[in-house]
Amino acid sequence: MSTQENTLSVFALGGLHEIGKNMYAIEYGNDIIIIDCGNKFPDESLLGVDLIIPDIAYLEENKDKVKALIVTHGHEDHIGGIPFLLKKLNVPVYATRFTLGLIELKLKEHKILRESELVEINPHSTLEFEKINVSFFKVNHSIPDCLGIVFHTPEGNIVHTGDFKFDLTPEHNEHSDIHRMSDIGKEGVLLLLSESTNAERPGLTPSEQMVGDHVEAACRKAKRKVVFSTFASNISRVQQIVNAAHKTNRKLALLGRSMLNVVGVAMERDYLDVPDGMLIDQTEIDDFPPEQVAILCTGSQGEQMAALSRLSTGNFRGVNILPGDTVIFAAGPIPGNERNITSIVDNFFGLGAKVIYGSGSTSGMHVSGHGYQEDLKLMLTLMKPKYFIPIHGELRMLHHHRMLAESVGVEEGNTFIMNNGDVLDIEQSIARQTRRIPTGNTYVEGGVGGSVGDFVLQDRKQLSEDGMLIIVLTMNKTEGKLLSDPETISRGLVDRAYDFTDFRKDVNRLTKKTVNELQEANRTSRNVMKKELKKAIQQYVFRQTKKKPMIVPIVIEI
Amino acid sequence: MSTQENTLSVFALGGLHEIGKNMYAIEYGNDIIIIDCGNKFPDESLLGVDLIIPDIAYLEENKDKVKALIVTHGHEDHIGGIPFLLKKLNVPVYATRFTLGLIELKLKEHKILRESELVEINPHSTLEFEKINVSFFKVNHSIPDCLGIVFHTPEGNIVHTGDFKFDLTPEHNEHSDIHRMSDIGKEGVLLLLSESTNAERPGLTPSEQMVGDHVEAACRKAKRKVVFSTFASNISRVQQIVNAAHKTNRKLALLGRSMLNVVGVAMERDYLDVPDGMLIDQTEIDDFPPEQVAILCTGSQGEQMAALSRLSTGNFRGVNILPGDTVIFAAGPIPGNERNITSIVDNFFGLGAKVIYGSGSTSGMHVSGHGYQEDLKLMLTLMKPKYFIPIHGELRMLHHHRMLAESVGVEEGNTFIMNNGDVLDIEQSIARQTRRIPTGNTYVEGGVGGSVGDFVLQDRKQLSEDGMLIIVLTMNKTEGKLLSDPETISRGLVDRAYDFTDFRKDVNRLTKKTVNELQEANRTSRNVMKKELKKAIQQYVFRQTKKKPMIVPIVIEI
Repeated sequence: MSTQENTLSVFALGGLHEIGKNMYAIEYGNDIIIIDCGNKFPDESLLGVDLIIPDIAYLEENKDKVKALIVTHGHEDHIGGIPFLLKKLNVPVYATRFTLGLIELKLKEHKILRESELVEINPHSTLEFEKINVSFFKVNHSIPDCLGIVFHTPEGNIVHTGDFKFDLTPEHNEHSDIHRMSDIGKEGVLLLLSESTNAERPGLTPSEQMVGDHVEAACRKAKRKVVFSTFASNISRVQQIVNAAHKTNRKLALLGRSMLNVVGVAMERDYLDVPDGMLIDQTEIDDFPPEQVAILCTGSQGEQMAALSRLSTGNFRGVNILPGDTVIFAAGPIPGNERNITSIVDNFFGLGAKVIYGSGSTSGMHVSGHGYQEDLKLMLTLMKPKYFIPIHGELRMLHHHRMLAESVGVEEGNTFIMNNGDVLDIEQSIARQTRRIPTGNTYVEGGVGGSVGDFVLQDRKQLSEDGMLIIVLTMNKTEGKLLSDPETISRGLVDRAYDFTDFRKDVNRLTKKTVNELQEANRTSRNVMKKELKKAIQQYVFRQTKKKPMIVPIVIEI
Repeated sequence: MSTQENTLSVFALGGLHEIGKNMYAIEYGNDIIIIDCGNKFPDESLLGVDLIIPDIAYLEENKDKVKALIVTHGHEDHIGGIPFLLKKLNVPVYATRFTLGLIELKLKEHKILRESELVEINPHSTLEFEKINVSFFKVNHSIPDCLGIVFHTPEGNIVHTGDFKFDLTPEHNEHSDIHRMSDIGKEGVLLLLSESTNAERPGLTPSEQMVGDHVEAACRKAKRKVVFSTFASNISRVQQIVNAAHKTNRKLALLGRSMLNVVGVAMERDYLDVPDGMLIDQTEIDDFPPEQVAILCTGSQGEQMAALSRLSTGNFRGVNILPGDTVIFAAGPIPGNERNITSIVDNFFGLGAKVIYGSGSTSGMHVSGHGYQEDLKLMLTLMKPKYFIPIHGELRMLHHHRMLAESVGVEEGNTFIMNNGDVLDIEQSIARQTRRIPTGNTYVEGGVGGSVGDFVLQDRKQLSEDGMLIIVLTMNKTEGKLLSDPETISRGLVDRAYDFTDFRKDVNRLTKKTVNELQEANRTSRNVMKKELKKAIQQYVFRQTKKKPMIVPIVIEI
């Protein structure tokens, strides 16, 4: 299933039909170049799972071909899988200065920073591999130092946009390089891969500047301390909060490990300007009058262990939210997090705080980092690609993006709505999508050797809804006779107190009856016994409780 | 803790700090009048629970005082708990004709229709109890035949709004009776209880008429069949879909049990006009050209077993969605359901359908049935209450509603933000909130005698995240010696295949070691043994896997 010598192949190991775990690859001859290696957070159905990363079996099989991992920017859904990748593949990582800072934090945590090969690039860098050359262009997004990538191949140029929007008045000179994009388009683009996150939203993304005005107004209006929460990596947002706090004569305290880490990287590497003496430690908050304090913390998505959530329940040692304080969510809710966020909002209301929350369009405290429909159309117009793969989105977003592409001139039939693992092969400028490589989700949790499988998750699902019922039989090994009464134990099924005695008696009676019948029929092997017991008890329990607990018969032979 | 003879008491058994399971009560002398008895659907944290209803212990203790259940309207969060209540308390139920129709469906399902006492009322009815008289006023909401209630008590009048908005151009003459409300306000309102669902949203709720125009336009534009999904009980919405389908010359097929049931009730009782010969059976859909067919089905909230979800995965027998069909979500997403809904949207895109979805304000296919801020202010202005309890909402909504009340003249300090179980006592026109009655959630599932407790849910949570580890020891009863090797079984913890053998060996070794140590120390009682084993194994497993499975040591003595 490997590619032909002169075929240019493009595929995703993550990022299609989903928001998260972005990982794309370009393969030609002896080169495989990877773009990004992100993670994704599980939804509630993946019980106990901490993290999802792409399955990289295909790359492990083609180890020698993998020449580089190029990272477009430092968000978790683009870098979160890197430590797991590097533990399996020794590949150099190319990224810009700020992105590298965040990758280094991760590698340090996993204790593999020293052996990793990290190469700093900038928008003017070029890279050369066997038959693929690579150049870059600067894009604007909600984190500093973002790249789009151009792959110059014998078949033609492939452009990967990274995550982007067009903000004409960004913070900190984070301008999109529209002139370079225009040149790339003029040179000719065979295939464009462009992100689709906001393909459903009409219009043009508002500028980050809008948020700055609202943040400052809120600081002025607040009569006591102001708490902001946003993503630590959104340095433009952090800069605006710093500016507003400074202008309104407030000290700033940072709460939350990732806020301290990321702001540290940003200050060290000159992506953030903080006036001298403005930052204070959390222990110093009470040394200043409340109207001279601002707090910036993590947890805008309602994460239970993060600073904001702990502040809302009065569980952040040494820092209290009091009546008249203002709490501002300076980040939009990521779909799926709404309930956790609103429960924190409720808590703050309960403490008497003023709370500014909701989507950016209602609160004014957030703008998206992902381009809306007009941004996406502008990118498509600049690039004028022959072929198009919408990436970085759920299925409906990919379809919306396809329609946008067709509206600005991409020929019908030239857009490929692909799945992770689908391969687009290009030969003599003709693209065909006919084959797949193996791919999927790798579930990471705690310390379990890195991953758990589907069986474990199925078990957990059954246990979680209907609990379990254990029946222990002790039998004479030679005669197959019961040595004592069966032992019945249930967890998560019915209340331990109420009427479990009768229930247990019934199960024991049924167990003995089943064992007797099997003995009379001379069917006393452990496996037969377990299977028949399971069946009989399952039926009884379902009739009684309408539940289907996991039945675990244990036969001890002595 | 019962009330004084001349105290008027008001409390909620459900509906405060939550959207769902509404149940409020007025108590004076020997009368307790209940308002509504709803249910709520559990979020993902309540593993395996099907339904939540209010804990009615207080009412059971005061059985003889409970004179009536008055139901404001027929939504699940106002009637879903009635069968469970009637099984415990024999109390007459007062409701309007359409509401009674829906309650009857429920009581039939629970097989208690015959013994229940149902009394039909209308907005002009009056009821008399020992010292409380009751009258009503018509309100507009997203279901027919809704009531607000006035309680005339010796202390003064209490008004409960039910769920409402002010729609000046409603379907089917479902006008709010503003003139009657104005008279009630002029007569004087001691205490208002008003719903808070949309207290966060500025402006006035748009009229249902807006949806009608969009529905018709979509039917005209569609070149093949159109599938609408909405709440069955939103008869105004159903009427508009019927009208649009009729005008565009389409037959209409209904899919989903509750759609068939509720539309049946509505047609029977003249709340819905469907032209003769327009309804077709689902088996007849293919007898008509696709441009002459519309389908109306349940499942707009992404419910997995409902018609819409099954259509989206090609699992609805006999009905197929084909490229060019149009699917329209004619209902807004209830917070928490977004993910399930978008995955259905994705499926329909995958089938090649055109999909119209999203919030009503973007799609035009939905307006809320709950009043926005200006609606709420209008109600407060009409009623001019002395005291105010915002009800039917999460905490932040109650606080927003308080601010709205203060903005239209309710005195600061006269609004009570209460919890379920908090009691507002009014004596000689002075309101005080000082005491509580017992209350809480009752979890209903499958057939388990009606309810499960917190222990069971805690067990399920642990099982769901970290699985379990069972260790069976068979011991000699007299000497306390092991009769065979320990048996170790795990589910939902680590992959059964990979490296479980070593893991099991280690656990067995540790078990034997622990047992030996205990024997040497002469500590061989079953309980000590179980406790010590649990501790030792828990530590080992956590070191190895970073997981905390439920450890179940079972000691069999022979």
